[in-house]
Amino acid sequence: MLAPGDRIGILGGGQLGRMLALAAARLGLSCHIYAPEADSPAFDVAAARTVADYRDDDALRRFAAEVKAITYEFENVPVESVRFLEALKPVRPGAKALEVAQDRLAEKELARRLGARTAEFAAVDSRADLDAAIKAIGLPAVLKTTRLGYDGKGQAKILTAADAEGAFAMLRGGQGILESFVAFDREVSVVATRAADGTFAAFDVTENEHRNHILHRSSVPARVSSAAAGEAIAIARRIAEALDYVGTFAVEFFVIDATNTVIVNEIAPRVHNSGHWTMDGAVTCQFEQHIRALAGWPLGATTALGKAEMINLIGAEAQDWRAILADSHARLHLYGKGEARPGRKMGHVNRLLQG
Amino acid sequence: MLAPGDRIGILGGGQLGRMLALAAARLGLSCHIYAPEADSPAFDVAAARTVADYRDDDALRRFAAEVKAITYEFENVPVESVRFLEALKPVRPGAKALEVAQDRLAEKELARRLGARTAEFAAVDSRADLDAAIKAIGLPAVLKTTRLGYDGKGQAKILTAADAEGAFAMLRGGQGILESFVAFDREVSVVATRAADGTFAAFDVTENEHRNHILHRSSVPARVSSAAAGEAIAIARRIAEALDYVGTFAVEFFVIDATNTVIVNEIAPRVHNSGHWTMDGAVTCQFEQHIRALAGWPLGATTALGKAEMINLIGAEAQDWRAILADSHARLHLYGKGEARPGRKMGHVNRLLQG
Repeated sequence: MLAPGDRIGILGGGQLGRMLALAAARLGLSCHIYAPEADSPAFDVAAARTVADYRDDDALRRFAAEVKAITYEFENVPVESVRFLEALKPVRPGAKALEVAQDRLAEKELARRLGARTAEFAAVDSRADLDAAIKAIGLPAVLKTTRLGYDGKGQAKILTAADAEGAFAMLRGGQGILESFVAFDREVSVVATRAADGTFAAFDVTENEHRNHILHRSSVPARVSSAAAGEAIAIARRIAEALDYVGTFAVEFFVIDATNTVIVNEIAPRVHNSGHWTMDGAVTCQFEQHIRALAGWPLGATTALGKAEMINLIGAEAQDWRAILADSHARLHLYGKGEARPGRKMGHVNRLLQG
Repeated sequence: MLAPGDRIGILGGGQLGRMLALAAARLGLSCHIYAPEADSPAFDVAAARTVADYRDDDALRRFAAEVKAITYEFENVPVESVRFLEALKPVRPGAKALEVAQDRLAEKELARRLGARTAEFAAVDSRADLDAAIKAIGLPAVLKTTRLGYDGKGQAKILTAADAEGAFAMLRGGQGILESFVAFDREVSVVATRAADGTFAAFDVTENEHRNHILHRSSVPARVSSAAAGEAIAIARRIAEALDYVGTFAVEFFVIDATNTVIVNEIAPRVHNSGHWTMDGAVTCQFEQHIRALAGWPLGATTALGKAEMINLIGAEAQDWRAILADSHARLHLYGKGEARPGRKMGHVNRLLQG
């Protein structure tokens, strides 16, 4: 168990690492951020920084020596680096969760094994596999790389057989997974935290709206039945227990209203964009929950303070900061990123809604 | 007007500077902390640090060159240092507010000039002054240094004429002020912010309970009539306007219930311990309000989220962190200070209260 004053290590220096560091600071912990990019947004709020490649064993060793426990802020950290660190210091969540979340095939197989619904899927290692998968699953479908995809990257729709060739080329020799299209009514996510002692606490199920494959808006309460919400939370809990997960994570679901069905789409072994509303809309926020879990401390209350929404500020949208600040009830969060490139997450706005 | 990405400078590296830096980070601003102590708690959450004496002109000049605007986190920064910086960069609040707040006599004279009630008081520059003041004001009374007092330091009660000699010695040749005892029912404070454009926004009047001259508990709503609350806020506003103040500040009052009277006790030209409940109990917190004012941005809503309380963790009380974390609704804030010396402010706990 960590004590106030201890230093934690965070792999990754993006906005999630930055908001984790801010939460840690509130609890009297200091942070050492490890990231390859010299201008990482999290560096500005950390007591110590390492700029090094994730595969630099010497840098990893020095980093581990200076901290009491380690976490990561995104799922594309190499599993080998996490294994290397696990031999030196507690790493939460560990390599196991990372490994599953980095592999769309393993992710879906886990969900199925735990009794959850997923889209139909098949592994695609070759052009012949793809044809067989299309035959088995039917069209339309979507071909995805099993690894390193996010925000719609590494995906290609296959509407007719003629699309197969181009979609297969996208894999560039890597492994793929063909998934059936799911005709869903809405997307929701469960953001939850599992403590070191196995305690589990979920935030209210969150409804998510994407634009151009990037999260645009999250809101609570989600428009789902209690039964569907309860099932989604139960599935998230089973996933966390199966992975012996410690920390905050998210499971994204498709919802089919008519049948009250929730379908696992993706698992994120980290704090999640769809949980950003908790910073202003819940008693404890997802970042503090993660830090508490990492420290071996009890979790805080996840009670929502009311109806809440979060809207992402993507690319040039962050230039609206003046107008947002002029709305005295808008809670503006900016990540300190220099360049507002298209598609880049620059910040978000939380609001507690009336009624 | 500042823009996201800009760097601000903060004189002082204690918990107030630390919480200001955390608020600045949320808004996409980075901080440069200037403090004489190498182990300043605010350093851990800042992008840049200067360890130097407040009277080191070279260090002040380098500091000013690296930031867009400057503020201070406590009122014992030398006025000359602030004047020096004002010639180089915008400093908010400026030297004027600091000068008045550093001088108990000037503070009380300002309050009186603005039509507010204060304790009876008289300047004490000599032993003869003290005798005359005791004759004029009566006993019991309290002799205070006009400068550099806080948390009950630099004060001596005079219950009978026999106490006068010892009390006078406490002044050590410095200027003093004799104040009459006020028989009050409770202490309250107004924490408020004045923006660069003159906009003014007060948080709910806060009731304060001290132990050993150190704030123990603050709570809202305060047990005061609307008339008394309204008068306190109006006085705070007049003070801010008279000082052309920009930023968050606090005015402490004594309240006499029977006559609905509020009596100005002290002005703090900075974010204030009695405003810490706003971190979890108001739409916008006092730290963010100060940063918004410093940046020339509009203020946020000060609406309270409900009944709230803040309890300070003084010295060894911070060792109760395990028990506090076990209360899932308690919002623990720790300042990252190494040694829990008696009387040292180590952290605080906020709670939203039921009903």
